[in-house]
Amino acid sequence: MSTNVCRALFLGRFQPYHNGHQALIDHIVQSDDVDELVIAVGSAQWSHTLRDPFTAGERIMMITKALAGTKMTTYVLPIEDIERNSLYVAHIRSLTPPFEIVYSNNTLVQELFSEAGFEVRPLPFVQRDRYEGTKIRELMLQGEEWKKFVPTTVAAVLDEIDGIERLRQIAKTDKQP
Amino acid sequence: MSTNVCRALFLGRFQPYHNGHQALIDHIVQSDDVDELVIAVGSAQWSHTLRDPFTAGERIMMITKALAGTKMTTYVLPIEDIERNSLYVAHIRSLTPPFEIVYSNNTLVQELFSEAGFEVRPLPFVQRDRYEGTKIRELMLQGEEWKKFVPTTVAAVLDEIDGIERLRQIAKTDKQP
Amino acid sequence: MSTNVCRALFLGRFQPYHNGHQALIDHIVQSDDVDELVIAVGSAQWSHTLRDPFTAGERIMMITKALAGTKMTTYVLPIEDIERNSLYVAHIRSLTPPFEIVYSNNTLVQELFSEAGFEVRPLPFVQRDRYEGTKIRELMLQGEEWKKFVPTTVAAVLDEIDGIERLRQIAKTDKQP
Amino acid sequence: MSTNVCRALFLGRFQPYHNGHQALIDHIVQSDDVDELVIAVGSAQWSHTLRDPFTAGERIMMITKALAGTKMTTYVLPIEDIERNSLYVAHIRSLTPPFEIVYSNNTLVQELFSEAGFEVRPLPFVQRDRYEGTKIRELMLQGEEWKKFVPTTVAAVLDEIDGIERLRQIAKTDKQP
Amino acid sequence: MSTNVCRALFLGRFQPYHNGHQALIDHIVQSDDVDELVIAVGSAQWSHTLRDPFTAGERIMMITKALAGTKMTTYVLPIEDIERNSLYVAHIRSLTPPFEIVYSNNTLVQELFSEAGFEVRPLPFVQRDRYEGTKIRELMLQGEEWKKFVPTTVAAVLDEIDGIERLRQIAKTDKQP
Amino acid sequence: MSTNVCRALFLGRFQPYHNGHQALIDHIVQSDDVDELVIAVGSAQWSHTLRDPFTAGERIMMITKALAGTKMTTYVLPIEDIERNSLYVAHIRSLTPPFEIVYSNNTLVQELFSEAGFEVRPLPFVQRDRYEGTKIRELMLQGEEWKKFVPTTVAAVLDEIDGIERLRQIAKTDKQP
Repeated sequence: MSTNVCRALFLGRFQPYHNGHQALIDHIVQSDDVDELVIAVGSAQWSHTLRDPFTAGERIMMITKALAGTKMTTYVLPIEDIERNSLYVAHIRSLTPPFEIVYSNNTLVQELFSEAGFEVRPLPFVQRDRYEGTKIRELMLQGEEWKKFVPTTVAAVLDEIDGIERLRQIAKTDKQP
Repeated sequence: MSTNVCRALFLGRFQPYHNGHQALIDHIVQSDDVDELVIAVGSAQWSHTLRDPFTAGERIMMITKALAGTKMTTYVLPIEDIERNSLYVAHIRSLTPPFEIVYSNNTLVQELFSEAGFEVRPLPFVQRDRYEGTKIRELMLQGEEWKKFVPTTVAAVLDEIDGIERLRQIAKTDKQP
Repeated sequence: MSTNVCRALFLGRFQPYHNGHQALIDHIVQSDDVDELVIAVGSAQWSHTLRDPFTAGERIMMITKALAGTKMTTYVLPIEDIERNSLYVAHIRSLTPPFEIVYSNNTLVQELFSEAGFEVRPLPFVQRDRYEGTKIRELMLQGEEWKKFVPTTVAAVLDEIDGIERLRQIAKTDKQP
Repeated sequence: MSTNVCRALFLGRFQPYHNGHQALIDHIVQSDDVDELVIAVGSAQWSHTLRDPFTAGERIMMITKALAGTKMTTYVLPIEDIERNSLYVAHIRSLTPPFEIVYSNNTLVQELFSEAGFEVRPLPFVQRDRYEGTKIRELMLQGEEWKKFVPTTVAAVLDEIDGIERLRQIAKTDKQP
Repeated sequence: MSTNVCRALFLGRFQPYHNGHQALIDHIVQSDDVDELVIAVGSAQWSHTLRDPFTAGERIMMITKALAGTKMTTYVLPIEDIERNSLYVAHIRSLTPPFEIVYSNNTLVQELFSEAGFEVRPLPFVQRDRYEGTKIRELMLQGEEWKKFVPTTVAAVLDEIDGIERLRQIAKTDKQP
Repeated sequence: MSTNVCRALFLGRFQPYHNGHQALIDHIVQSDDVDELVIAVGSAQWSHTLRDPFTAGERIMMITKALAGTKMTTYVLPIEDIERNSLYVAHIRSLTPPFEIVYSNNTLVQELFSEAGFEVRPLPFVQRDRYEGTKIRELMLQGEEWKKFVPTTVAAVLDEIDGIERLRQIAKTDKQP
């Protein structure tokens, strides 16, 4: 492989895609040595649970619309979990354009890509406690204000797919008579 | 789901993406009633065979670069085969943004999406015999001129991934001493 | 599809099939608008655990024998779990006769079938605390009276397969020397 | 396991269930030493192909209705193919009530169940060339008379699911412009 | 099958292989009626987790080297978990030479092989609390002395694969900025 | 990884293991720069077919016994096929000790390991037409002399598992009445 294009990978579950993700991607886009960015939508097979309410397709739509104005070439791709850590790097590589750099703070991801010879870069911590997905899903369930924590394009997607209603329905208990 | 956006699905193997595909996508992009286009890269799990030499990631790179100038919002996504036809529509829907129209000349795809209530539209036949993938892979193997049948961006991707050399290596027989 | 037959789906794990299930099925059989009933034996791939001691085949035998006298046409079928909620409805539909109504109190099942356009009906609560499977398996383990909570045909099946002995063997701890 | 009930297994693809199958089952039902019959619908995951047009659920519906009057207790169950012959017997056993006898003329099935210690009985040849599935599907495609080769209840199921139309749609070629 | 060779199965996860395992195998090797020993490396698909840090290949290397001097013929084989207990015995049998005896203290393993007609023998308790894998992995993480609890050949393998470093990297939390 | 041990991989289906395989392994064992040999039993999940009659466990037993006298440390391991060529190298690596050299004449195997940076060495052609598996299985079926083409230990294993009888049973046609 002889190429001068340098691609980086950014991996997340994006349940939903929020301002914290956006800030991290803005950070990567501004780095001098990255030319193209691969955004991997992990746990792609999951949906309709409290932890993973949205389908891979829905999450891809959120991200694609949020990045519409980005100048860098981006690839937004679903990656299903694979129950064998030793195959994870090969699994991701087979579904993505070739890349050299991996952005992640997950220590398992760091270890797997390091063993495979990739350059692994930590992510700067961007107001994690305010933006993280768990908190946003909780606000959605409580009927509180969540829209300010996500890009407006993401809120529009959630409207289109009736996402808040789905989350609330799943959260109901089936224990009552 | 209450949305006024109309999305269409276009499904192919793209081994490789060629001018015939490009002409079909140009045709869809010009239709009045399609707002966004989902391009599904089928048989995503296959690579390194004579029929499917390129990985899903490589094919996605080809298509994304070829469509860089397109005004319509497009989603280019890998779809693995699933050995149960009766799950195929649900499988694709879970990995893609919601869509209503399916462009395909494949009668199985037409039947499956028709049974599921989708609008299925046939594709106009665009010089099929000149552009089809089998013929282009054959030209690659024979060392003949193939670049004029694919977008220039696709030829550049094939250079980056050393695609022609891979195809030739796989085509060698292991029967000699 | 042009048919006047209306089929309903009833989904459970049936570990084991008990009088509570029987009461619910009696309730469905008496509804005016249901002609045939599909009984789906969920988590069909599980057996030999404290939560799921009996195989799908054993559970199907329990149910078939318990329903021997029923006038309504019934189908008793194994359904393996599928680790993708977005495929669950298609998965069940491919293994069952066509149906229109789903009886369930499980909110995930309700949501998945509602999104797919099915009529979902809640089940009346029939002495849940007395009859539920967990409690019956506990009685079996403790050597207490459990037979009165299941149809006599089910007790006969459990005898034939030596089911109580299996449950007790699995429950033993392997921590002693 | 201490039981006096003797169950037998009969395995087929049933694409569709026809008079030949019915004759074989009538033969088994009349044997003195079989008390209950398990009918396994093989290749359950396949549908929507020329060789396997009907889903497992549809085939189960055909068989259940055709056997409505049978006095013997029968179990009609879907069995997915498993790509490991050495697990096939255990796979079937886990999804079916316990059985001791296997009726089959397939030599692989005979070998696998023989190695596992089952009694394997050959089936009498019942007008194979007239009734076999391939021929009936061919008649359906040609628009010729096929209804006399299947029980009337099966013809009714095929009407309900619009089965002939599906078969014809799949059989169309997608090679024309 | 007419053979006078008697083989036994010993099943473990071996994370890592330690002196406790070695003592148990020494015990089996000395039994009068066992001629050959099959050592099944369970949960073979797992690696790179705190509970299962080492790959199947790495564990097989540990055991093979530790048993280099053993006079008995041994087979050291990877066995992936299978999410269906009812197939587990057939799964193991298909990947191993024929065996008749199973050594295990795990009650599920005992039940599954007993139901399948195997002779199941309990293992003598060999200083379990001192040698067990959990404790050794904890020592590795704490930087305390662990080498005396494993054969020297195993320590050499862990050096070659940089195993302690992997374990420590995985154990780091990703919660800090 | 800092090791001075050099391991090589030799991959085959071994249906059955024969003198041609033995000659190739003798050749590898004599090379100056290989210290240990990993023998991968491919298509491990297949058995009971005309092309793949013997289980992985049976083939492992054949090879282990045939190599009993070998001085080099060998690992004989089952490797199931994986329907994704792009994962094949990672799949094998996760189940084997670390290796650097791959012996193979198969062009796909050569390409996959070359792309992954391994040294690939062709095998010398050792009387291929006399020894190859297809021919030996044909002799077994015809009742002709096959024992001289395999090590005597392999013939003993085939006797123990009644292998020839299995092959002949599978080869029977089920077309007769």
